[in-house]
Amino acid sequence: MSEEAAIEGDGASCPRPLAVVLVSGGMDSCVCAAIAAEDYDLAMLHVSYGQRTQERELRSFEDIAVYYKVTRRLVCHLDHFRQIGGSSLTDAEICVEEANLERNEIPSSYVPFRNAHFLAIATSWAEVLGAQAIFIGAVAEDSSGYPDCRPEYYETFNQLIRIGTKPETCLKIHAPVIHLRKSEIVSMGCRLSAPFHLTWSCYQNVDLACGRCDSCALRLRGFREAGVADPISYV
Amino acid sequence: MSEEAAIEGDGASCPRPLAVVLVSGGMDSCVCAAIAAEDYDLAMLHVSYGQRTQERELRSFEDIAVYYKVTRRLVCHLDHFRQIGGSSLTDAEICVEEANLERNEIPSSYVPFRNAHFLAIATSWAEVLGAQAIFIGAVAEDSSGYPDCRPEYYETFNQLIRIGTKPETCLKIHAPVIHLRKSEIVSMGCRLSAPFHLTWSCYQNVDLACGRCDSCALRLRGFREAGVADPISYV
Repeated sequence: MSEEAAIEGDGASCPRPLAVVLVSGGMDSCVCAAIAAEDYDLAMLHVSYGQRTQERELRSFEDIAVYYKVTRRLVCHLDHFRQIGGSSLTDAEICVEEANLERNEIPSSYVPFRNAHFLAIATSWAEVLGAQAIFIGAVAEDSSGYPDCRPEYYETFNQLIRIGTKPETCLKIHAPVIHLRKSEIVSMGCRLSAPFHLTWSCYQNVDLACGRCDSCALRLRGFREAGVADPISYV
Repeated sequence: MSEEAAIEGDGASCPRPLAVVLVSGGMDSCVCAAIAAEDYDLAMLHVSYGQRTQERELRSFEDIAVYYKVTRRLVCHLDHFRQIGGSSLTDAEICVEEANLERNEIPSSYVPFRNAHFLAIATSWAEVLGAQAIFIGAVAEDSSGYPDCRPEYYETFNQLIRIGTKPETCLKIHAPVIHLRKSEIVSMGCRLSAPFHLTWSCYQNVDLACGRCDSCALRLRGFREAGVADPISYV
């Protein structure tokens, strides 16, 4: 059906633009999906990159995709982060540190330049699908301090997309929770009925969340400050 | 041995900085390796992404790495381009066109946003190795007109690296043949004894080069205009 037919037709809804949403299985990207679903049809992308908890995160991705009735799904497996090493998430020789939310340095869980790999895949897929938007749940404030989670990083990536894709491609990255505190992300997710019960954040465990790694600590503080009970179970 | 000791010491050569060179197996990246070898120790990166001739290109990569006595090698296999499709190089349903070097449109061999995937891997690896440079054999003039081969694309990617890596990481992409015509690349490669006999350019075949695809046509014209015999065999 053409767009015009849909608008002038028998009450069928106007076709919506398409967005590729990067869904890690964690709470930030889950809220991103909820935000994107307000205005877009969704295609969901998940990347396993040899991180410790990848099977558990993939399960959360699948559960969230089912929740949003998304059939356009792409699951990618990247081997090279394990070969490259340099991060506690992908190198068994490096320990996952316990959280220290006051620290200013970049934690050992930093995976060098990771988000560029994810955005490159999202951009290639979006260009072929004809999607107009990519959603990513990067958080700058109240985060672990990774350098590839800053707003200017996404502005620069958008410039790269403008230069590096076909002239007719019209595609932009949205990072709608980048300026929010974790507690605000929880509140927004609650307003949009994001399925927090299906998400996984822990860097360490795959059955019960450890509650002590950076990612668990940030999540728990976010729910506490929002005055909402975290629906997942902890050790 | 510290750098100072090397400089003031017993004639041992000063340690050279390290560069990651993207080596596809083609002639442009081979000449890039020759240029990088003038000033850097080399680490060589090759990416197979489901392109038709990937086994043949990987063999050229290995041969070139042996020629330059490079032991730091990373070979990555990306499955997702075949899943994403949209290019004659990775989708068996789309034919490789015969060359039309006068045409202005982007050919069907364009792999959406491909070079960003390669540069992301190179950047992650370089950051962990402590390399100071990434060399890529992108060609803007006299090329197939891919949007991710333009100088401003690499300027923007350098900005992304500055923002998106650790503060202490000091890393820059070099595209030393980007402004050269193919014939100038041939001449430069000859001056630097680049092993053209080990390279592979054909998009179509894996035994004898077809001589008719875009990549063969550009290569043959380059050698002809440089007045040099191409050492590889054609159908």
